[in-house]
Amino acid sequence: MPSVSVCLSPRLADIHDFRDKIGIVVDILRATTTISTALEYGAIAIRPIETLDECKNWRSKGYLGAAERGGKKVEGFEYGNSPFDYINKNISGEKIALTTTNGTKTIHAVKTADMVLMGSFCNISALSEVLMDKKKDIIIVCAGWDDEINLEDTLFAGALIDGLMDSFDVSADPAILAHNLFLNGKDDMFQFLKKSSHVTRLLNFGLKKDIYFCLEQDKFDNIAVLKNEEIVLL
Amino acid sequence: MPSVSVCLSPRLADIHDFRDKIGIVVDILRATTTISTALEYGAIAIRPIETLDECKNWRSKGYLGAAERGGKKVEGFEYGNSPFDYINKNISGEKIALTTTNGTKTIHAVKTADMVLMGSFCNISALSEVLMDKKKDIIIVCAGWDDEINLEDTLFAGALIDGLMDSFDVSADPAILAHNLFLNGKDDMFQFLKKSSHVTRLLNFGLKKDIYFCLEQDKFDNIAVLKNEEIVLL
Repeated sequence: MPSVSVCLSPRLADIHDFRDKIGIVVDILRATTTISTALEYGAIAIRPIETLDECKNWRSKGYLGAAERGGKKVEGFEYGNSPFDYINKNISGEKIALTTTNGTKTIHAVKTADMVLMGSFCNISALSEVLMDKKKDIIIVCAGWDDEINLEDTLFAGALIDGLMDSFDVSADPAILAHNLFLNGKDDMFQFLKKSSHVTRLLNFGLKKDIYFCLEQDKFDNIAVLKNEEIVLL
Repeated sequence: MPSVSVCLSPRLADIHDFRDKIGIVVDILRATTTISTALEYGAIAIRPIETLDECKNWRSKGYLGAAERGGKKVEGFEYGNSPFDYINKNISGEKIALTTTNGTKTIHAVKTADMVLMGSFCNISALSEVLMDKKKDIIIVCAGWDDEINLEDTLFAGALIDGLMDSFDVSADPAILAHNLFLNGKDDMFQFLKKSSHVTRLLNFGLKKDIYFCLEQDKFDNIAVLKNEEIVLL
């Protein structure tokens, strides 16, 4: 039986050996949700970028520039890290260079995996189906916030595990921890997360609708995969 | 209102600023439980030591040598990391040099705190009383296993938080996570932890009675504190 593990912070990623495994990148609020949304609404590739300067440079290569720091869109960029920046906007057929506070770093931490997929509530059932089909060991890597563990990514890890438990070995302690959190929070995730630090931060920015969006399940059936340094549809 | 935070792995300790705060070191299975037990049964000081060689050297300075690696007592040492090594044994008035797989490293990670206390179920109520009395910010640091987060230390963090919630701010995500785990596991901690990796390891070594001992609450009312590189009674 293949196993599913959870890495609760990118800082802990090097404890894990990603080779021959599937890595799932999770940054629920909001990078991985936003990436799936942008691909759903017509973008053909998202290139995860570390720095703002680098992100600007990619615009001269024909990419749209998207940047977020500390939960806010960075001035001088057309797009930020809200899924609403990409819904019915002029992104059809476009490539996007995206830099976010935590998501990008996490994607780089997982790169040695055999396959790197993006996880979000938006596509959790589609993702689960692919994982059941592949039957490979999985490591879910939560982006957290500035290397600190956060509630929303852990909650998603637990939700994904909940759907995989019959077909995967779930005996690693962080996986059990995440699944327990999900059992406590699943009935009303918004209320459950209201106490969390990043939800509080986004609520203070007036981004309640972003949070609702990011917690809604199975809006899309797309799967976002990292291929040649860019995220594209599987 | 002072706050209580949780650091779920020593690898994440440098995210926290320990200055002017109380650090609680937690290595339930078994270092912090064993330290409280040794002090209760007459040892006057425990010196946490990183390496086996260093630990041997302290014996020539009149210390008893205690060493554990991978859950087992190290050959050539009189004492290991089981509380039963110290109950009604010849340790009255003795100093002990102790090196363990994860506990020692965690103690060093917390050293910059204003005060460093050991946490275990053995003395959880006594510890809680001291913390209520001090009214200072607290960071609970879990030893985990080889830098990975584990269930038993997280469970204890949640249990300690449960008793402090009315008087402390508990809004940091890892603190909420730990408290949720405790809510799920509190009714039967042994059964709850049976799935965890280190409990499985100790059970395979025939150490069931150690686990029961380490999960029993309020055996002692002592408080172990780090003072001048050694752990003594408060």
